[in-house]
Amino acid sequence: MLPISRFAPLPQHARSVGGGLTAPKGFLAAGVASGVKKRGKLDLGLVLSEQPAVSAATFTSNAAAAAPVRLTRETSDCGHLRAVVVNAGNANACTGKQGLADAARMRLLTANHLRLPVEQVAVCSTGLIGVHLPMEKIEPGIGAAAAALPAGGDAKASEHFSAAIRTTDKHAKKGALEVVMPEGKVKLGFAAKGCGMISPNMATMLCFVTCDAVVDGAVWTELLHGAVDASFNRITVDGQESTNDTVLGLCNGASGVKPGEEGLARLGQALDAALLALALSIVADGEGSTRTMKLTITGAKDEGRAEAVARAVANSPLVKTAFYGRDPNWGRIMQALGQALGRDGHEHLPACISYEDVVIVEKGQPAALGEAQQGRLAEIMHQPEIDLTVALNGPGAEATIYFSDLTHDYVTLNAEYST
Amino acid sequence: MLPISRFAPLPQHARSVGGGLTAPKGFLAAGVASGVKKRGKLDLGLVLSEQPAVSAATFTSNAAAAAPVRLTRETSDCGHLRAVVVNAGNANACTGKQGLADAARMRLLTANHLRLPVEQVAVCSTGLIGVHLPMEKIEPGIGAAAAALPAGGDAKASEHFSAAIRTTDKHAKKGALEVVMPEGKVKLGFAAKGCGMISPNMATMLCFVTCDAVVDGAVWTELLHGAVDASFNRITVDGQESTNDTVLGLCNGASGVKPGEEGLARLGQALDAALLALALSIVADGEGSTRTMKLTITGAKDEGRAEAVARAVANSPLVKTAFYGRDPNWGRIMQALGQALGRDGHEHLPACISYEDVVIVEKGQPAALGEAQQGRLAEIMHQPEIDLTVALNGPGAEATIYFSDLTHDYVTLNAEYST
Repeated sequence: MLPISRFAPLPQHARSVGGGLTAPKGFLAAGVASGVKKRGKLDLGLVLSEQPAVSAATFTSNAAAAAPVRLTRETSDCGHLRAVVVNAGNANACTGKQGLADAARMRLLTANHLRLPVEQVAVCSTGLIGVHLPMEKIEPGIGAAAAALPAGGDAKASEHFSAAIRTTDKHAKKGALEVVMPEGKVKLGFAAKGCGMISPNMATMLCFVTCDAVVDGAVWTELLHGAVDASFNRITVDGQESTNDTVLGLCNGASGVKPGEEGLARLGQALDAALLALALSIVADGEGSTRTMKLTITGAKDEGRAEAVARAVANSPLVKTAFYGRDPNWGRIMQALGQALGRDGHEHLPACISYEDVVIVEKGQPAALGEAQQGRLAEIMHQPEIDLTVALNGPGAEATIYFSDLTHDYVTLNAEYST
Repeated sequence: MLPISRFAPLPQHARSVGGGLTAPKGFLAAGVASGVKKRGKLDLGLVLSEQPAVSAATFTSNAAAAAPVRLTRETSDCGHLRAVVVNAGNANACTGKQGLADAARMRLLTANHLRLPVEQVAVCSTGLIGVHLPMEKIEPGIGAAAAALPAGGDAKASEHFSAAIRTTDKHAKKGALEVVMPEGKVKLGFAAKGCGMISPNMATMLCFVTCDAVVDGAVWTELLHGAVDASFNRITVDGQESTNDTVLGLCNGASGVKPGEEGLARLGQALDAALLALALSIVADGEGSTRTMKLTITGAKDEGRAEAVARAVANSPLVKTAFYGRDPNWGRIMQALGQALGRDGHEHLPACISYEDVVIVEKGQPAALGEAQQGRLAEIMHQPEIDLTVALNGPGAEATIYFSDLTHDYVTLNAEYST
């Protein structure tokens, strides 16, 4: 089932259903153990749309983008992908020309096994940075995965796929939604992985979406990009953008249901809610994370400024450690937002700061809290999800960022591993 | 004595001498216990030049700048300051109009006691954010400090001053240099405090410099700003800029020595070395810090880009935890610099990365290290100071940033304190 957060409620016309990527019609998936991960763990996955599909994709903007990202982004037809091959355990990042050749080889082998043109195949990798792919394991793995694709979509197969793309994720991040439209029902399937730019250099966040609605490519792209922008692009565990981040969505029309305006709106809402829920499950699963904060900045000069301020607060190690310590330490929030606003931003202060329904700072000064409010504040600081609002004094632009706390376990996970 | 780092060797014509702010001629200092800090600790300091002085100052660019910063920056004559009053234990930040009135009252009382116009007095505060100053303690404290100013500069007095400006600093950061010029000898005196934007909301970094050379205001300003830019503006403990950061330099000409071109060059070198040494002692004293890294980026498009990349690496919690774990984890450096360069920066990769004299990454790929080099690398990772170079593939602009590691103690210090 889709992981659901209080911050990502399902919209009215969507309901969570069993299965994952293969819940929508006409999608096959497989996950096998190629030997890249140890002890026979699943580590190589395939997804295939049985019929032509439209597709949309977003990639990391990291200049050190991994070979599979560069290959797929620059030489595949990201509007008409039908298949994805993914390996976990090795990111194929910072691997130079050999890395690009290996990614191209993965794509070619997959295309040959599936009888597709190479341009219709995307390649993703996640795992260690700076190590060449063990192609002698990957190559037979691709053959095995292609052979394992079941005749029809089956829930077990999408579970295998989800397992095959995990690295150090504690929880699986998958699910499916059924969306009821005036024109009929369609399904969305999901599989994601990631928990920050995480320990042993894991590189990092992948998300795959399948859909069986009849939607043209431009609309599907708009839906997917909009949903990514409000979900994966709005979370931070440690502020570190990986070299491998990829979101791919395939939409094959196999349901035969073609949504009209209202239907598209519902499909968009369902996609938004699901990607936000998956993104939040990455934050909750973030290294050492003990709680998730939703931070909304209001009253900024423009959206860019609002987002920059929100990110500055969300990535401040002082703010993050305060939440770990269950300390409503608003001085650190003021410091971080003052730094982000810079000297010219003084006009947007003083700010008001709320923790859930408790206004803790009014016009830049500590609010006088009664005993009941102090009790409520202590309660809030123990919640697994905390809703924060910072109201600046400016025109009114807003932005929201979701973030995790910074804990001893984060330091342990990232310091005690040795390359 | 001035704390000296391998990264900040003293220049040829400067030597460390005893005393601190009062080592240069014509400067008096005092530090008293006003009661803001508990248990009779020194918490209020005064510095006075006995004769008119030129002065230069740099302040935090945080939009939430504290009341004393706003008062001094906006209404004192920062080119002709003669005295500074400082309290520790309370930052007078996020304190609204009352805070501004309290800072102005501190300045007025100091000016009256010292018989100076208010414009010649600077006010600094450091300590808790968001609490009003206890003026009933501060006011008599200022009187006591003024009364305690000794008849002539004395080393004890500058020690009291240094103690009075400390908050959670583990080590005192003070000293004096004698600079030998063709025209004669002059002295520089120093007192600084800070260890990051530190635990219990301490706000944070202050540095005071005295000098008895005969130098005009424009030249003194240029010397001080240049030195600050290459020292305090190049360090990071946790990337968090405080609301109270201030560097003030007073230069009173009391030595009667007027440096010519060569003399000014030597004075500048001494000032640069001393401020860098003080800045590095702040990094070394950073919360939970166990080692200091010097990171130099070369081959960038321009200096701004070089600095941004250096800061991105220096503030990455993944890079910082790797150094804590003594792990030469270059993949995290590649990830952080790739993120900072962004997709358009791909042309500046691949990069070469060196840890001291060991080249660990060549053209974006892992270098093949022999056994001797691996042994050397393990040694380097245990040094208290580590010199890192990242050579990008671009035109050649450079920048250097000094940073500390991220440790369990950092999390403990910042999480376990409760407001």
